Amino acid sequence: MKRYLMTPGPTPVAPETQLAMAQPILHHRSPQFMEILAKVREDLKYLFQTEQEVLMFAATGTGAMEGAVANTLSPGDYALVVDGGKFGERWAELCEVYGIVVDRLRVEWGRAVKPEEVAQRLQANPAIKAVFVQANETSTAVQHPVKELAEITRSLPGTILVVDAISALGGYPLPMDEWGLDVVVAGSQKAMMLPPGLAFVALSPKAWEFVKTSKCPKYYFDFAKQLKSQQKNQTAFTSAVTLTMGLQQVLTWIREQGLEKIFAHNRKLSRAAKAAVQAMGLNLYSKENPSEVLTAVEAPAGVDGQQVVAKLRERGIWIAGGQAQAKGKIFRIAHMGYIDELDLLGTIGALESALNELGYKVELGVGVKAAQEILGKEA
Amino acid sequence: MKRYLMTPGPTPVAPETQLAMAQPILHHRSPQFMEILAKVREDLKYLFQTEQEVLMFAATGTGAMEGAVANTLSPGDYALVVDGGKFGERWAELCEVYGIVVDRLRVEWGRAVKPEEVAQRLQANPAIKAVFVQANETSTAVQHPVKELAEITRSLPGTILVVDAISALGGYPLPMDEWGLDVVVAGSQKAMMLPPGLAFVALSPKAWEFVKTSKCPKYYFDFAKQLKSQQKNQTAFTSAVTLTMGLQQVLTWIREQGLEKIFAHNRKLSRAAKAAVQAMGLNLYSKENPSEVLTAVEAPAGVDGQQVVAKLRERGIWIAGGQAQAKGKIFRIAHMGYIDELDLLGTIGALESALNELGYKVELGVGVKAAQEILGKEA
Repeated sequence: MKRYLMTPGPTPVAPETQLAMAQPILHHRSPQFMEILAKVREDLKYLFQTEQEVLMFAATGTGAMEGAVANTLSPGDYALVVDGGKFGERWAELCEVYGIVVDRLRVEWGRAVKPEEVAQRLQANPAIKAVFVQANETSTAVQHPVKELAEITRSLPGTILVVDAISALGGYPLPMDEWGLDVVVAGSQKAMMLPPGLAFVALSPKAWEFVKTSKCPKYYFDFAKQLKSQQKNQTAFTSAVTLTMGLQQVLTWIREQGLEKIFAHNRKLSRAAKAAVQAMGLNLYSKENPSEVLTAVEAPAGVDGQQVVAKLRERGIWIAGGQAQAKGKIFRIAHMGYIDELDLLGTIGALESALNELGYKVELGVGVKAAQEILGKEA
Repeated sequence: MKRYLMTPGPTPVAPETQLAMAQPILHHRSPQFMEILAKVREDLKYLFQTEQEVLMFAATGTGAMEGAVANTLSPGDYALVVDGGKFGERWAELCEVYGIVVDRLRVEWGRAVKPEEVAQRLQANPAIKAVFVQANETSTAVQHPVKELAEITRSLPGTILVVDAISALGGYPLPMDEWGLDVVVAGSQKAMMLPPGLAFVALSPKAWEFVKTSKCPKYYFDFAKQLKSQQKNQTAFTSAVTLTMGLQQVLTWIREQGLEKIFAHNRKLSRAAKAAVQAMGLNLYSKENPSEVLTAVEAPAGVDGQQVVAKLRERGIWIAGGQAQAKGKIFRIAHMGYIDELDLLGTIGALESALNELGYKVELGVGVKAAQEILGKEA
């Protein structure tokens, strides 16, 4: 049976990328590989919309998140963590592991943080050195207003904004330099359409200043060491050669398409998905700033969200259930990366059938039609 | 031009493995992938020759080395580091990053540590909690006597033996449980014949006791968290799906062959390589316990080791030069993983020609003949 990954990571890998990764292995210190790294370094800057070096690690996104904490702060430092979902919690856990004193700004799941609340907390404790937030909180499919948060932090010389953009980068606009984001973390297996195993992070000049005074222990995720190596077209430790060859292929494609076109495609899919589930009488779980790369839907009364996930799996379609407090209450359909209109229409059609089987009656085609009406329009 | 990686990582990846990794991506929490992890977990135990769980990380070997320090020790603890090469130095650097007090047992490059010296140092400071060593010091092609070291540490309840087996595991005998090694670290891109990007570590019950009291910060490389996830056939964070599919293929092959046959093959290649260079009038750089997976050779008078490397590259053959203090003085030919007799004979033939071109006169065929005589004999 064909398998459709409509999940917020891993996302499908294009056959062209699979072929790029099936090439014979190169030595990671060979001129051929260094040439690939040189190209990749430039294209990553385009993707991050930054003039800074984008650091690459053989790891998944959490590794780079850990690095973001360990390289900018010191034990005893204060941090403000926006905690509105499972990945917000991860920022708090990471900080606590390194002895950072965490002020948790709890946000109701499904809602976005209010910039004025962040401003108030920072005013209340001017010693706070970093604000940690998700650009796209994957567990709730909410986009936190990082542009507005950056407007607050950029005026504070002693405070940086650290953004987990693992499920956001490459999916919708997040211009790092223009908005003034200080640390941006990304991963390979979401909008970058690669297998898991590469993590990325870029730092503003302001954040690099923080690195100079940080006293947390780090070695594998040492940002200064990695920067120095990459400037010589190497990585500090052995490169993940195969994934990097896939990365080169993907980044070339992204650059050919152009970010604007990709963002517009994702935005359209997102609007179609949201119109479709609402036409079925379902509610979005994301009450504010719903994500443009992911649609979280409340399971209808009497239906377990996990059952919806299971019913779609029977059809070869993988969507995600809810995590932690949202488990059973929601299901999530991702539409980022190597996903097209056909994938989405098929998923919506399957969802209509699945809901009917589970006892929630929905007229067949009603969601598909709502989606078609949006997809049929020019960009 | 064909490319031959006779380097101590990355090593060549077999076409069968490339194909396994070119399969469509699986979701890392899918039953299909969990089945793969279940199989891989069992086969890793066979490879490590242990009954303990082998932890898997999306990282390169250095990441698991860092984890070995951060998960077993606490700041202020004492450690003895056997430093006889570039990777011995890495253990010391890693310990120092975490505030461990390091007693460096310096060993002349090209020589192996003497177990009695380790015993003396441990006697002089009974507070030493861990001995860090390389099974195979890649920079010098020397095998440290880890079996003998384990005989010392196993009688000391407060001291563990931590072995970097990144370039050793799967290459020659290193039975973890039988010898009493406490922590064994491995990587994907050496004898395991995979691309870089997976790191492995296994701990003895004694080492797991150390984990309980360790106070170093860790999150991505948190061993206890990883163990708990793997026992549910998951990894703590997103799995490196593609590499794991290659891993399944490789481990199945290793198990079908049997470790003994692989070790015998490597031993024969090693003896042939060493006989060949000696027949050319060259000296081994490894004065004691020369490695069975790698041959380090002193460049003859008047010839720079890096020139030898460069001359072979012109022929598509990648060998390694010397690192740090050995740079220019040596060259290193690896013979581990997906390397056969033809690869080795071709490399030796190319080496003869290269040396002649560089002004070191060697009778063509003399090294090849010495190798042939060994390779021609039954196992």
